[in-house]
Amino acid sequence: MSTEGYNVVFNMLSLGIASMLFTTTFLLVGRERVLPRYRMAVMVSATVTAIAAYHYFRMFDSFVHAFGPDAVAGASYNVGYRYVDWFLTVPLLLVETVAVLALARQAQSSLLVRLVPAAALMIALGYPGDSGMTMGLAPSVWGLLSTIPFLYILYVLFVELGKSLERQSEAVQRKIKELRLLLLATWGVYPIAFIANMNATGFDETSFVLRETGYTIADILAKCLFGLMIFTIARIKSGEEDKEFAKAEFRD
Amino acid sequence: MSTEGYNVVFNMLSLGIASMLFTTTFLLVGRERVLPRYRMAVMVSATVTAIAAYHYFRMFDSFVHAFGPDAVAGASYNVGYRYVDWFLTVPLLLVETVAVLALARQAQSSLLVRLVPAAALMIALGYPGDSGMTMGLAPSVWGLLSTIPFLYILYVLFVELGKSLERQSEAVQRKIKELRLLLLATWGVYPIAFIANMNATGFDETSFVLRETGYTIADILAKCLFGLMIFTIARIKSGEEDKEFAKAEFRD
Repeated sequence: MSTEGYNVVFNMLSLGIASMLFTTTFLLVGRERVLPRYRMAVMVSATVTAIAAYHYFRMFDSFVHAFGPDAVAGASYNVGYRYVDWFLTVPLLLVETVAVLALARQAQSSLLVRLVPAAALMIALGYPGDSGMTMGLAPSVWGLLSTIPFLYILYVLFVELGKSLERQSEAVQRKIKELRLLLLATWGVYPIAFIANMNATGFDETSFVLRETGYTIADILAKCLFGLMIFTIARIKSGEEDKEFAKAEFRD
Repeated sequence: MSTEGYNVVFNMLSLGIASMLFTTTFLLVGRERVLPRYRMAVMVSATVTAIAAYHYFRMFDSFVHAFGPDAVAGASYNVGYRYVDWFLTVPLLLVETVAVLALARQAQSSLLVRLVPAAALMIALGYPGDSGMTMGLAPSVWGLLSTIPFLYILYVLFVELGKSLERQSEAVQRKIKELRLLLLATWGVYPIAFIANMNATGFDETSFVLRETGYTIADILAKCLFGLMIFTIARIKSGEEDKEFAKAEFRD
């Protein structure tokens, strides 16, 4: 790889580590700044960024091992770390989204039994297309198959979950809508990064740098910024629901 | 590198690690010594020094890898760590400054939506000039471009934020003014260190040692001392606003 390309990916992966690691500590320490009923959502958010921090450490090492000055012959960059990460974190991102609403138990289960398997399926179907283990199908076919559960998730979030929003305050409704848009915008980056690398034959540096940069920025927005927005929603709802809490935590 | 030059940078980077790491633990443990409404500012301060501690560990390793007795051929010192660090921490330094004032929610958002993007832009525009990836422009042009958001930040802090200070007590006003001066003085060191290295053609040891020493001292003042001043302001305000707290925490 060229020095510039190497530096870009190297610094992006390190940015990924730092973002994930310290969003985790912030959320873990910050969970006591929300009411107990919202702490589960904050803890799940911290778990997501912690899992991602682990995988970013692994990816960083894998990348340096494959392309760095001490590169070992035969070592190759393992994109599998990303898919293992997403397989765990993407369902959890939907869990934190539902958890922060603090819905009635039944409404919550009904959303989760549909969102969680769809998210796992979406990731599992993307991996063969991105890793080269295509099992006889074109990468674009795997990309397309993976899009079906993605569309189903969007349907549940925008149509089904929309019905649960009516009972929330206006400030919360606005934040949840921002959250959904962030999810749509960031999850939309993954297919673009996927496509950037899809038609590369063998190793193509530009496609590789674009893909890794795209995945990393999308990950930081979809996990760190998303987790911090979940935290903000939990803070707003805590303030709305408990006068004593609001007086202790906020000026106005 | 000469032994003297090597030792200076080596010891400065280690000083950076120690300062960042233990300011973090002090602030994390100390956050309960302020009222709940000021804990967010202290937590953000701890997050800043934690992010910087991570990057100082990385820079230390990168430096030893590039110049140490076991230096690896082809390894070079990665200045990108500093820019990734600043990209995350400089916006957060402005967040902690605004958070410790505990302004009304709207005044707070109005300051942050202007300060945070300006800070991120300032760092992003500095990197090409310092890393050699100049994309056809002279490093001084990047330095100059980066100065525009810096001046805007100063305007917001000294003019706009000044208006919010009137409602604070005299002791707090004095501290905030000291805080702003510390910010101006330390952030002013970065361009000087930037310029020290700007016109070096290839690797120039004196410029390199000056730049790394300058950046490290400025970082310690702008993050550790700054974070401890935020903590002091939070303590003063906590004492002013809650008689029970003041009785428990202070002698007089």
